[in-house]
Amino acid sequence: MKLLLSHASILTEDWSVISDGFLGIDGDTICYVGTERPQEAFEREKDMRGKLLIPGLYNLHSHTPMSLLRGLGSDLPLDRWLNEAMFPVEARLIPEDVAVGTRLSLMEMLASGVVSFTDMYDRTWATMQEVLDSGMKANLCRPVMAMNPAETYEDNFRVEEAFRFVKDVRALNNSRIRADFGIHAEYTSNDAVIGRFAGDMKDLGGRVHLHLSETRKEHEECKQRHGKTPARWFYDLGVMDLPVIAAHCVWVEDSDLTLLKEKDVSCVHNPTSNMKLGSGYMPVKKLMDAGIRVCIGTDGSASNNNQNLLEEMHLAAVLHNGYTNDPTIMKPFEVLTMATKNGAEAQGRTDCGRLSVGCKADLAAIDMDRPHLIPAHDIPALLTYAVQASDVVMTMVDGAILYENGLFLTIDYERAKFDLQAAIKRLF
Amino acid sequence: MKLLLSHASILTEDWSVISDGFLGIDGDTICYVGTERPQEAFEREKDMRGKLLIPGLYNLHSHTPMSLLRGLGSDLPLDRWLNEAMFPVEARLIPEDVAVGTRLSLMEMLASGVVSFTDMYDRTWATMQEVLDSGMKANLCRPVMAMNPAETYEDNFRVEEAFRFVKDVRALNNSRIRADFGIHAEYTSNDAVIGRFAGDMKDLGGRVHLHLSETRKEHEECKQRHGKTPARWFYDLGVMDLPVIAAHCVWVEDSDLTLLKEKDVSCVHNPTSNMKLGSGYMPVKKLMDAGIRVCIGTDGSASNNNQNLLEEMHLAAVLHNGYTNDPTIMKPFEVLTMATKNGAEAQGRTDCGRLSVGCKADLAAIDMDRPHLIPAHDIPALLTYAVQASDVVMTMVDGAILYENGLFLTIDYERAKFDLQAAIKRLF
Repeated sequence: MKLLLSHASILTEDWSVISDGFLGIDGDTICYVGTERPQEAFEREKDMRGKLLIPGLYNLHSHTPMSLLRGLGSDLPLDRWLNEAMFPVEARLIPEDVAVGTRLSLMEMLASGVVSFTDMYDRTWATMQEVLDSGMKANLCRPVMAMNPAETYEDNFRVEEAFRFVKDVRALNNSRIRADFGIHAEYTSNDAVIGRFAGDMKDLGGRVHLHLSETRKEHEECKQRHGKTPARWFYDLGVMDLPVIAAHCVWVEDSDLTLLKEKDVSCVHNPTSNMKLGSGYMPVKKLMDAGIRVCIGTDGSASNNNQNLLEEMHLAAVLHNGYTNDPTIMKPFEVLTMATKNGAEAQGRTDCGRLSVGCKADLAAIDMDRPHLIPAHDIPALLTYAVQASDVVMTMVDGAILYENGLFLTIDYERAKFDLQAAIKRLF
Repeated sequence: MKLLLSHASILTEDWSVISDGFLGIDGDTICYVGTERPQEAFEREKDMRGKLLIPGLYNLHSHTPMSLLRGLGSDLPLDRWLNEAMFPVEARLIPEDVAVGTRLSLMEMLASGVVSFTDMYDRTWATMQEVLDSGMKANLCRPVMAMNPAETYEDNFRVEEAFRFVKDVRALNNSRIRADFGIHAEYTSNDAVIGRFAGDMKDLGGRVHLHLSETRKEHEECKQRHGKTPARWFYDLGVMDLPVIAAHCVWVEDSDLTLLKEKDVSCVHNPTSNMKLGSGYMPVKKLMDAGIRVCIGTDGSASNNNQNLLEEMHLAAVLHNGYTNDPTIMKPFEVLTMATKNGAEAQGRTDCGRLSVGCKADLAAIDMDRPHLIPAHDIPALLTYAVQASDVVMTMVDGAILYENGLFLTIDYERAKFDLQAAIKRLF
């Protein structure tokens, strides 16, 4: 099917805006972008007057099923929040809970222009099925942990599950859904397990999603435990020989930046979560200055408490100015790059994240006819400082419209609420 | 007219939630709140099933006409932003520009549940008329400045305008709209003018809206200039003998807190603006610990870039946790208090800001049937961390519905866009 989106404003790869433009889609791929009506014939045409087409957004770090725990224990210190509000419920989750928790997050993401996300959670097959059904893209992992220092590689059931998950996803042969490897974090791992895991991951090939130096406590305790930072620990164990997506990176040191750059690690900024939990701030400017690829994510809804990536972009745009007392630190186009091109690259999707011919037709349409989006002196500034999730009126993945004008075309919201009630009844 | 809002969730004064409750309104006043259907008769009933009624929000610091300048010069350092992007356009503004700029901001505020705001800008009569027409509440001022140290009280045309504005507004005898006095800031004033102004203000009575210690530069330069902080300067000149609304208070010192508390000054937190402009952070926790009334505001859209108070509440809720590395610093109910009760008190509206019998019927209805608002484990946490402006489906002021389901009932949006085009054509 060939679809023409006509009379739209189009945000181009260099962050300039084509007015009254045309974007042609052939199947799942962008086949035309320009100011002139294309010569070729299209079976369907959609008038996008007053709408701005932007590349679909990439949420590079989440735990999507955690929407089930939204707002639990919000006033507790971090350790009590984890031990009293999170872990006891998480221990009781069954796949049906994970499924509906994931589904809520997918709806939130689609409604705010997100086309793809990188996720880490347990009962991962349930999340996989939800992503398949929704039409979204995702890089998923079933993370490995080894809390007990004496735990061996052979005894770790998570390692077996991690490889089984990778094989199951790869057997689907569906370009939308990718299996990454996952390592929860240094402080929940031991050398023996991760060292062996790194070798086996390399044999199979793939990407690794992990938490890195999120809190000062975990960062400092790692140095006491191993005499090195978490980044150096992963580096020395060979984990960084694969492409790594490192979430948080709040407490990374200057020496870590050298390693992260050398290994082309993608670092994920999660501003709300880091602030809400009192973890601190990723030194984004330092990372960018070191040439490191910075992406952006929501983290799970238990620590956010939503999956609104536009809110994270807003925060990323203003936070570092405030922190450094320099209003020129973060520029709108840099934040947009994090949320689109950088996210796609970090997921290994080189034909995504840009509205260019030959790229996948992953996009969001913003209704610019809103009181808070006029006058439109500066479109990238509007997108980072003023836009709201509800301004997204269409989200498309691989040429398919998944969300439009408040309606989810692949997800049954009423059914999701029904399933949620059942899950809540089971869990609380 | 007596109106009954039935089957609603209702957020009470102690931040608990009444489920399936009834809220009765007699004219402009709340006459009933309870879980039982009231005995008395109501002429009209509105089913609010699935909606949460919250006290209408108070935006305690803005420059509403500045929506005209939204996004201009976003990448510039502060002094160049002011001198190159702001001042040249502001010098060309005519009342019609101020009117339509105000109108855009009023629409944004109504669409995000704001019922009242405190504003500071020039050509203030135009703003006054827009507020009157809209049905909103506002405390407005025509601010005094005296940039030239040699300028006398008699020569200052702004003083004359300030008093004329106060008299004109008071002659309206409309409880929705109040005239405050305004002093732009210490760094734009001189002793002679402000000292005399303080005396005359005291004679006439009223409240004072001013900027206080927004940037480190202005705070330190004041100390060099006067040998005292801006707070002490205003205190010594007698300005604080009137009730003061002090915007920003980013660089206030411990000794200032004593003065602010002694004089019951209301301090307004503007998180986005302070971060975006690189000004820093209000030490909110210190102010709260000192017993000072903290309110919250958007500042103007030129430095925000919108009028979405829910976004400010979200930032206020997470920012200070991140800054202090303590996730227990800010509690959802504290942020809600800032945005409602504290705002109303600071405006001198003692019968507002709470959903209690005898209070004005100023409220917003939130549609809780949204993917990002379920499950609803903790309503105050949802309202501060997860809610979005578009979840507001009704905003009511003095018993009149001004906004409902995307429609502005007192403002013509198409006419506003027409007027905006004319203003943009004149100005740029």
